[in-house]
Amino acid sequence: MILTKITDTELLYLEQKRQEIDRLLDRYLPGEDVYPQTLHKAMRYSVLAGGKRIRPILTLTAYEVFGGSNPDLINPAVCSLEFVHTYSLIHDDLPCMDDDDLRRGLPTLHKKFDETTAVLAGDALHDLAFRLLAESNSARAVLELAKAIGTFGMLGGQMADVEAEGTDVTLEQIKFIHSHKTGALICAAVRIGAILAEVDEATLEKLSLYGEKIGLAFQIVDDILDVEGDKEKLGKNIGSDRKNQKATYPKVIGLNQSHQDVDRLIDEAVAISREFGLKDNRFITIAHFIGQRDK
Amino acid sequence: MILTKITDTELLYLEQKRQEIDRLLDRYLPGEDVYPQTLHKAMRYSVLAGGKRIRPILTLTAYEVFGGSNPDLINPAVCSLEFVHTYSLIHDDLPCMDDDDLRRGLPTLHKKFDETTAVLAGDALHDLAFRLLAESNSARAVLELAKAIGTFGMLGGQMADVEAEGTDVTLEQIKFIHSHKTGALICAAVRIGAILAEVDEATLEKLSLYGEKIGLAFQIVDDILDVEGDKEKLGKNIGSDRKNQKATYPKVIGLNQSHQDVDRLIDEAVAISREFGLKDNRFITIAHFIGQRDK
Repeated sequence: MILTKITDTELLYLEQKRQEIDRLLDRYLPGEDVYPQTLHKAMRYSVLAGGKRIRPILTLTAYEVFGGSNPDLINPAVCSLEFVHTYSLIHDDLPCMDDDDLRRGLPTLHKKFDETTAVLAGDALHDLAFRLLAESNSARAVLELAKAIGTFGMLGGQMADVEAEGTDVTLEQIKFIHSHKTGALICAAVRIGAILAEVDEATLEKLSLYGEKIGLAFQIVDDILDVEGDKEKLGKNIGSDRKNQKATYPKVIGLNQSHQDVDRLIDEAVAISREFGLKDNRFITIAHFIGQRDK
Repeated sequence: MILTKITDTELLYLEQKRQEIDRLLDRYLPGEDVYPQTLHKAMRYSVLAGGKRIRPILTLTAYEVFGGSNPDLINPAVCSLEFVHTYSLIHDDLPCMDDDDLRRGLPTLHKKFDETTAVLAGDALHDLAFRLLAESNSARAVLELAKAIGTFGMLGGQMADVEAEGTDVTLEQIKFIHSHKTGALICAAVRIGAILAEVDEATLEKLSLYGEKIGLAFQIVDDILDVEGDKEKLGKNIGSDRKNQKATYPKVIGLNQSHQDVDRLIDEAVAISREFGLKDNRFITIAHFIGQRDK
């Protein structure tokens, strides 16, 4: 199977959405001059350092594609997905976790500020995400996020990831880690957009499948980029998985098979998204991007 | 003004509620045998180490006093308040924060397990709190909690607390720290119970005042106990505020005046709660307890 190469029009669409989301994040973060300034500065530093904004783009896309049209409802939710992602990165980078110095081309938060501020800023973004989602007045969306990032989702994956360090893992274990650590939040991003657009349950089920495929693919690409990626483009050190003896797809099944798995997952995600019968199918655009990203 | 001494009947009531809440916490925490076991064991270790359970008692009491009667609605919310409190203690005890070794008579979580597990278990309890509150299907209750523990509430107070270490603080600053670091969550505990019981806005406003008074009193007592308390009863080291050069009431206004402020705040809280015209006024019981606790 050969992946359709992502077109310039598709890339332009994603870039426009990314810029739109950057503006939203800036607006929904408390200002640097608002007390407690240090904490707000730290939160802004990490969130506004850049990023692909894949999760909020997924939430916004799912909402719009399924007919949602209320910016006051969706904008806070969109930000909430990126805030949760950033909180997880900040805590993940801590010395007691992955001990990373570089993120998005800048010093990690505990390097730029200190560990105390990094722990609290992570907590604060975690909290702000729920606050914004609650403002959408949908307890179901809150529940969706909480399930995705708790011990049966992202945190469970992170713990498994930490415990797998330096051990021999099976393909099954690594699939568990990836689908929980990364996949669960990506899947929730799609679902929350669709829930706020009030789609029916059958559509939601189908979207979950799409989300699972791209979520797993996203993390396998992450593993691959840690081996073959470009440090400048990525804005973080490469080879850190190997250094930390992390469980990765390339380690377990090799680079070649990892690439093939990504292609297959993206292909399946595209096939699922075609079933929605959409005229303007932006889910395909996002799937292509995830399969082909180099940063 | 002389505080009415708390009666044995009142103490018995609180003890019964505490036991009821301990059973709920045990039930709503994932089992130790559930994957990821390490994380669930760590969460259970910290939550079930004991405690006065003041916050969940306040939530339950407010709900019951104002006529709420659905255990499936209130029980998860009750647990959510204690989970948030425990998450804040776990992160507060970390080496990069207060660096405490002892909590509730046991080694702190990062001492018993490790820092990685402590960061993640705190995050997991933070998340579980929102999950359970979302199950009450009240986005308003979620919003209430998120506001109380974010940068404009508890986390703002924690940051101010950290930044005040070793500096000369004014009474105004210390009041800010205490009312945010501790008061905001205690106030939210009362309000969330009342919101779930669907009280009117006027009652909610009055309850907030009550919550603010007992919340501030609670933290001043904490400061006092760190000077005059009994290590065995408290289950934690005393004198740690002084060691960490913390901003405390006794440091700023002296022990004597601190005691007087507690008495006045409790007196005011009792007066406010009398305005509800309740026959069985358990808010008075709780206020008395907070004013007179020795652990």
